[in-house]
Amino acid sequence: MRLSLHTDYALRALIYLTATDAPAVTAGDIATAYGISKNHLVKVLQRLRALGYVETVRGRGGGVRLARPPGEIPIGEVVRRTEDLGEMVECFNPETNTCPLMPVCLLQRRLDEALKAYLDVLDGYTVADMAANRRALARALRL
Amino acid sequence: MRLSLHTDYALRALIYLTATDAPAVTAGDIATAYGISKNHLVKVLQRLRALGYVETVRGRGGGVRLARPPGEIPIGEVVRRTEDLGEMVECFNPETNTCPLMPVCLLQRRLDEALKAYLDVLDGYTVADMAANRRALARALRL
Repeated sequence: MRLSLHTDYALRALIYLTATDAPAVTAGDIATAYGISKNHLVKVLQRLRALGYVETVRGRGGGVRLARPPGEIPIGEVVRRTEDLGEMVECFNPETNTCPLMPVCLLQRRLDEALKAYLDVLDGYTVADMAANRRALARALRL
Repeated sequence: MRLSLHTDYALRALIYLTATDAPAVTAGDIATAYGISKNHLVKVLQRLRALGYVETVRGRGGGVRLARPPGEIPIGEVVRRTEDLGEMVECFNPETNTCPLMPVCLLQRRLDEALKAYLDVLDGYTVADMAANRRALARALRL
């Protein structure tokens, strides 16, 4: 079981944007701090912008910044919006499902219940909670 | 987020073995019923045998059968043993992690807490619970 790189990078970018004192940062800044693909991160930031979590600052010293206070960005919400939760197992996507058990399967309901419990935990925390140790994060990211 | 095919097939195989009246079935029987790869299922059954969930019946009409009552096989336990839970995100595997936040990351703890909640739900159910509608399952599998 794993989260997609897209979700992983989205959460890391939001933590970076909360930890930094800079008014705006570039995809290159974030990618370099984490040692990850800048191209991939550009796509992640586009998605975060489309979702209203970050906004673009134009001009000299421009880049991206949080578009909402980090205390108003629940982790569960980010995961729900960046992760393909319809792919937990094949039958979560009725269009591509081939499992003959689907109409009578009791397991599917339990996996769905377990997924809900997973997201419920993450709904209890915001990006601000993930950056409560902001100084330690800034040091780790060499900000 | 998704479970591996290995876990998906392991759970399906255990449900099949609970739904069938046959004293033993072959990998081909199960693979055909679900329309999935027999080669893959052979590996899944090998793993289930190594874990003590199924056993081999030799001779004419041989194959595999459950080695434990299905009511004594918790779903959470099967998922823990067949799924690579150390790969939820990169930092869950310290050997391959490259994220500089790892020593100070608060997100990792919350993802771990969420994963625990997920497995806790599945620990509340056994393979027998997943086959409580045994007749409907048998019909869906054309047993």
